[in-house]
Amino acid sequence: MPGTSKKANSASVSRKTKAPVFHLHVENSSKRQPLFQLREETYAAAAKRHRPLAARLKVTIGWDGDILDKQLKTADFMINSNPPREGLRERAPRLQWIQTTGAGIDGLLPLDWLPADITLTNNSGAHGDKAEDYCTMALLLLQTRAPTVFANQRDKKWIPIFTTPIAGRTAVIIGFGDLGSAAGRAAHKLGLKVIAVTRSGKARKPADAACKVGRIDSVLPKADFVIVTTPLTAGTANLLSRARLDLMKSTAGLVNIGRSPVVDYDALLDKLEKNELAGAVLDVHSPEPLPSDARMWTARNVIITPHISCDDPRYMDFLCDTWFANFARILAGKPLTNQVDRKLGY
Amino acid sequence: MPGTSKKANSASVSRKTKAPVFHLHVENSSKRQPLFQLREETYAAAAKRHRPLAARLKVTIGWDGDILDKQLKTADFMINSNPPREGLRERAPRLQWIQTTGAGIDGLLPLDWLPADITLTNNSGAHGDKAEDYCTMALLLLQTRAPTVFANQRDKKWIPIFTTPIAGRTAVIIGFGDLGSAAGRAAHKLGLKVIAVTRSGKARKPADAACKVGRIDSVLPKADFVIVTTPLTAGTANLLSRARLDLMKSTAGLVNIGRSPVVDYDALLDKLEKNELAGAVLDVHSPEPLPSDARMWTARNVIITPHISCDDPRYMDFLCDTWFANFARILAGKPLTNQVDRKLGY
Repeated sequence: MPGTSKKANSASVSRKTKAPVFHLHVENSSKRQPLFQLREETYAAAAKRHRPLAARLKVTIGWDGDILDKQLKTADFMINSNPPREGLRERAPRLQWIQTTGAGIDGLLPLDWLPADITLTNNSGAHGDKAEDYCTMALLLLQTRAPTVFANQRDKKWIPIFTTPIAGRTAVIIGFGDLGSAAGRAAHKLGLKVIAVTRSGKARKPADAACKVGRIDSVLPKADFVIVTTPLTAGTANLLSRARLDLMKSTAGLVNIGRSPVVDYDALLDKLEKNELAGAVLDVHSPEPLPSDARMWTARNVIITPHISCDDPRYMDFLCDTWFANFARILAGKPLTNQVDRKLGY
Repeated sequence: MPGTSKKANSASVSRKTKAPVFHLHVENSSKRQPLFQLREETYAAAAKRHRPLAARLKVTIGWDGDILDKQLKTADFMINSNPPREGLRERAPRLQWIQTTGAGIDGLLPLDWLPADITLTNNSGAHGDKAEDYCTMALLLLQTRAPTVFANQRDKKWIPIFTTPIAGRTAVIIGFGDLGSAAGRAAHKLGLKVIAVTRSGKARKPADAACKVGRIDSVLPKADFVIVTTPLTAGTANLLSRARLDLMKSTAGLVNIGRSPVVDYDALLDKLEKNELAGAVLDVHSPEPLPSDARMWTARNVIITPHISCDDPRYMDFLCDTWFANFARILAGKPLTNQVDRKLGY
């Protein structure tokens, strides 16, 4: 850690454990949300929770590349959401594992820069409980026509809009991984029928039915709500194109907690404006932060949130716990969890 | 029904059934929301669902008193949320049962105008599913600090606010009748601890604990959320006074789906402005509709909805079904459900 003499640290640890000490370099960006920065105090608290494992580590924490090249020379592991790509193997001869701080790694695709013997893991799994809450809220916001109700509050207009309870309606959930399952739990908890759209056409509970992404056109007309939870890959970009949005009922609503380029937002806002869709609750945008002149800010029938659907203030604590559990697997010679599939890109 | 000759109607029914025909007069107000008007077509659909019972009835439907005095002379039953009070017994010698269209009857209190031999029933029970949805949404809105998030959307400000999942927090629910139980189910479904405040100090599931209203001061400091669901009576007016609101945590939020005079709204808005409370989601107001210059419209950290938390578009269908079930009880000599307690005032 910065301010700690590496030599003293690794020496003392070695004396106690007689086991090899690995070097973990954490690279932060001061431009990211503080939530996604792994600060010294957060790591120290995690090291206390995982004391025997932490004793096997030498940890350095850098900011905006200040000590990056020096640390890469000896790093075995790296936590870094934007790893250096050019000549990585030469610059980091011992590097065997990179952990990203996010779940989506679309910013790193294609992975042709990543040496075959370096494992890449993401933070998928840290988002479930929060995403479930968000989807529960988003579904109810759409069911109660809250985008209009809240616009009326802003305009000081008292216009009661009465809607039925939500139970019995149908949610089509695109993607059924960590976030999709959370969305499924939310919908199921509210008494909705859940149809999952997945690559395989299979989905575990709480999905009531599933279909292959290639057959998505057959389920979109059934949806009272569509929830987008997929990562952004070559296969999901523009999946909800203008033509596919046209397949949805005019009374249906859309939630996006995945990535914005999965949906044609221009087409979406056009349709919302013309009441060809009932509403949208959108947490992901392009670019982020949204510029002040973005059409999105003032679009009709839309509630937007600033990419907060899935992130818990304890996010980095979870990341550290997940990381230590994987580190234990390395020491035990077991395969890591949360590995990114190089072909699928997530 | 209007347009149907009463004589022909009652005569033909009598011939078939040889059973006495009762006269039900439905009195509507054109000033109320259409949702709360019992129109001819709604009654006709209900009569189809309850054909043998409907055959025992002569029904008249009046608007704004147009045929009221004439019908009162022979009415056995009345559906009317604002029944005539002066000289009721003289004007309606046969009247034995009044059904209101709402659940809250605070507008009819005190009940000194109501002859002892006329039964008053309300529409409590029609609101549960919708209230559960609303409370689920309201709790999540408060947990995610949505009042601030939505104000930022309006101001085109991208300010991520990260909050923990809601599970594990504590909801104090004031009143645990039809609406309170619905609020309890909502909170329970989200993984909250539920403390009910009731007259008896007892509450059934899903409450985890209960306390007497006289001891409310002891539970308010424990609340992450307070949900007000009580009817308005002499005993609940100003129950959440300024002094009681002061007992709540500054991080806590308040939901009101009961009646607005139960909470000191001026004190509430003061506290929200000073961040002494985190947020409020308020569905009930005084007066309704809120006048355009009401402080409420622009208050900080408040989401307001126009009294829509508990009402389903199928509301009058439910009312008719409840009414026919009670009519069947009358024919069977059984006591009616949904009777208003004259002492308690609900």
